[in-house]
Amino acid sequence: MTGAECLLHTLAANRIDVCFMNPGTSEMHFVAGLDHVAGLRGILCLYEGVCSGAADGYARMHGSPAAALLHLGPGLANSLSNLHNARKARSPMVCIVGEHATWHRKVDAPLSSDIAAFARTVSHHIRTVETSAELGPAVSEAIAAAIAPPGQIATLIVPADLSWLRAAPPGPTVVRPTRAVPPSENIRDSARIFRSAGNASALLLGGASARERGLYAAGRIAAATGARVFIDRSAPCLASGRGIFAPPKVPYFPENAAAELAGLTHLILIEADTPVSFFGYPNTPSSPVPAGCAVSVLAAREQDGTAALEALADECGAVPELRVWRYNAATGGAAAGDALTVDAIGETLAALLPESAIVSDEMISVSASILTHLEFAAPHVQLPITGGAIGQGLPVAVGAAVACPDRKVVALQADGSAMYSLQALWTMARENLDVAVVIFSNRRYRILDIEMRRTAAPPIGSRADAMLDLRRPDLDFVSLAQGMGVPAARAATVEEFTSQFRAAMSERGPRLIEAVLS
Amino acid sequence: MTGAECLLHTLAANRIDVCFMNPGTSEMHFVAGLDHVAGLRGILCLYEGVCSGAADGYARMHGSPAAALLHLGPGLANSLSNLHNARKARSPMVCIVGEHATWHRKVDAPLSSDIAAFARTVSHHIRTVETSAELGPAVSEAIAAAIAPPGQIATLIVPADLSWLRAAPPGPTVVRPTRAVPPSENIRDSARIFRSAGNASALLLGGASARERGLYAAGRIAAATGARVFIDRSAPCLASGRGIFAPPKVPYFPENAAAELAGLTHLILIEADTPVSFFGYPNTPSSPVPAGCAVSVLAAREQDGTAALEALADECGAVPELRVWRYNAATGGAAAGDALTVDAIGETLAALLPESAIVSDEMISVSASILTHLEFAAPHVQLPITGGAIGQGLPVAVGAAVACPDRKVVALQADGSAMYSLQALWTMARENLDVAVVIFSNRRYRILDIEMRRTAAPPIGSRADAMLDLRRPDLDFVSLAQGMGVPAARAATVEEFTSQFRAAMSERGPRLIEAVLS
Repeated sequence: MTGAECLLHTLAANRIDVCFMNPGTSEMHFVAGLDHVAGLRGILCLYEGVCSGAADGYARMHGSPAAALLHLGPGLANSLSNLHNARKARSPMVCIVGEHATWHRKVDAPLSSDIAAFARTVSHHIRTVETSAELGPAVSEAIAAAIAPPGQIATLIVPADLSWLRAAPPGPTVVRPTRAVPPSENIRDSARIFRSAGNASALLLGGASARERGLYAAGRIAAATGARVFIDRSAPCLASGRGIFAPPKVPYFPENAAAELAGLTHLILIEADTPVSFFGYPNTPSSPVPAGCAVSVLAAREQDGTAALEALADECGAVPELRVWRYNAATGGAAAGDALTVDAIGETLAALLPESAIVSDEMISVSASILTHLEFAAPHVQLPITGGAIGQGLPVAVGAAVACPDRKVVALQADGSAMYSLQALWTMARENLDVAVVIFSNRRYRILDIEMRRTAAPPIGSRADAMLDLRRPDLDFVSLAQGMGVPAARAATVEEFTSQFRAAMSERGPRLIEAVLS
Repeated sequence: MTGAECLLHTLAANRIDVCFMNPGTSEMHFVAGLDHVAGLRGILCLYEGVCSGAADGYARMHGSPAAALLHLGPGLANSLSNLHNARKARSPMVCIVGEHATWHRKVDAPLSSDIAAFARTVSHHIRTVETSAELGPAVSEAIAAAIAPPGQIATLIVPADLSWLRAAPPGPTVVRPTRAVPPSENIRDSARIFRSAGNASALLLGGASARERGLYAAGRIAAATGARVFIDRSAPCLASGRGIFAPPKVPYFPENAAAELAGLTHLILIEADTPVSFFGYPNTPSSPVPAGCAVSVLAAREQDGTAALEALADECGAVPELRVWRYNAATGGAAAGDALTVDAIGETLAALLPESAIVSDEMISVSASILTHLEFAAPHVQLPITGGAIGQGLPVAVGAAVACPDRKVVALQADGSAMYSLQALWTMARENLDVAVVIFSNRRYRILDIEMRRTAAPPIGSRADAMLDLRRPDLDFVSLAQGMGVPAARAATVEEFTSQFRAAMSERGPRLIEAVLS
């Protein structure tokens, strides 16, 4: 078998069965192999940032990694900002990057670059395959690195000739590691803290612990002890909706975060790091944690935080059947005749979002408002931007839809950041993915108005204003979506939005609604 | 003055008066400064790859660098593949990358990353400013690095607090370096080689020597000595058209290149490196230069190759007024009723392209055919993809149009690669740039069909075919352009294309034609 076939067989044997790709010359044997080796589904993306973002979304919803196939240094470069987000999400991913043939690397060809240097900025594991004999084992090694808890970016650089030459047999099947549960004495120590400190103590849930089981256990602990609970902003997937315990995220702005955390004497981390401010601002400390607050780790990133929370709940004597959070009746959505404000959209989403929906959240300036409404929606999960690099919302929606073909994906998307990776719409159309995209069209980098004030910049005039403004010309997302084969409509009233979103929820397939905000 | 104002003043004092930008929180003071410091025009791009590609196009046509303003590591990451092209073009550029405030760098915030590591992959000069006192001098140092011949990528990393704190005065004005002319004994040695070896000797023109003056001198040398002349594929700007000497580029495919260079005993480089194959292929050497051919450098990259060619022409006794190349009558364009083939488009372009037009060439699989036709067009310049990283064509057109507002820019653009940086269309609309975009819509990564065969991949089936195919759904570039405010039309016949392209040449402002190839 060729090296490319060896690579494909090793992926398939390890149940990596999806590859988001944008191939070039050095990857042609890999592409040809899709017809010769069973088990790998190739999904074409029109830009590499879509590949990496989709692989991230896939991993967050599937648990197992997808592969991403990228072409040389520039192809990897185009994927880096979404790899940055995936790294912060601790998503497992196997990036396969084609390289020039071994002998051709020594010349300075136009596409020559230091691929490993590009990879190093975002990867936990990097290996350049140098011989045919090591190819199969190197693929298995990359897979093992990717699935090492909590999840890592593994980058495998494969010179073109190693794809077309005969290779040794496929690499071994990797044993899936299990996550360790923290020792019971640590559980008991934490329980003691919560019982004695009450609401001066808090849990911070990150990683996989912000999903439904972890939240449920945390809610029990809070009810039994009075301890506060917070969610790490970089948790890759969190449960929300009626009946689900809804602790606040650590707020985005540092003074709000400091206010939320005020009075804490103990903060216990579950798959999370000590919270820090998103940006540094004048006269503002980097951490919102009160001085003197003792911060300890109950479950490290690579441990099983959910099991730790469940054991802790039992240790705290929490009642097991407590599931009473926010069983409010579903709202009927915004009233016809209301202006199409952010809140009106939030009410409508809360009323119409189907159970088990997957929400890709790249709403930026309107995120906090909408998420508050979604606490009253049917139970669903949310996939936030973990690393702050905009342009992941639509790609993550692609990957989530591939991972969960039976669930509705709703991409809630700011307009400015939508333009970073809009090419994802084409893959939604080609693969007929069940994704409804809502564009919040305020025609401005609105968050930067806020940041401009916060950084105490001098008053701005028309030249600076133009750098935050997305008018002149207005972006027409209906045309843009249709240009990539996604049916689309514009909503400027509550009636239009409600009817379009209801239709999107009742029909399968990709669809875009441009919500023009009042 | 604030650090941001110091930065702006230093740029303006050095006549860097355009900044292509996509700012974020850490760059707010720079943006605010646009209204407080005269002399810098901010141009908003909706994706950072547009910023870097536009700065490249600007530099190739203006000679002086533009600035690019990018937000943290991910913003820089998004710009890297076009910085790769700019690096290979030796375009001068000053990249300003905002960083977290100095004290905030030590925490692992969501957007924290190793910015210098991203920068290192493409930059000749990198400096992170650490104190307010050093800011002005550091800006001048970056400018000096950027304009050092032949042109470099200089990256300046500026922590946010250094933008808002008081700074020392602006940095000094940098003296523009001149390019050295090779010593006259080297000119005489080369002349001897050409006179004795005749058509077994050749010139390879790269860098700035493939512009009109250099080509003219090279044509005189060829006429006087029989020497062959070739153009480096990575020359950033080359002259073409009626009356302009049109030596061949070193062919893309190595066996074609080897055939062109066959029989050479002497190859003399002018601002170029020894030619190498674009990719390595099975059983094919990396270099097409014949064994035993002596390769020597007459003008190094940083020297004045054009002056060297002029001196060499005189030394060879070439007559000065020889300007007889390709004075063919202008073709009338393709005949009505012909199918809209690549050749029909080429004939029409050759007939209608206005004098002094700037052609951004990202035509990929149809480039060779079209460029052959353009040798018969009115004199114009061409900006090719220097580093092979697709997605530069539209951004480079943006930058060229900003640099040369009185010249028509024509972006000749493959469909697949257009999708890499289509956001450039919005900047064309906002700035009302005089750019006509022609999309060659063959709805396929056509070049990969060729590469698939060349790499001797096994026969492909439907799964591999789908990875090269841009149908299902078809991209509708008319909708996509209109969605970003650029008037657009589709041409499926020679009549439609001719009338649309003629209209585009006679009117100012951005316009897109999707040419659906027969």
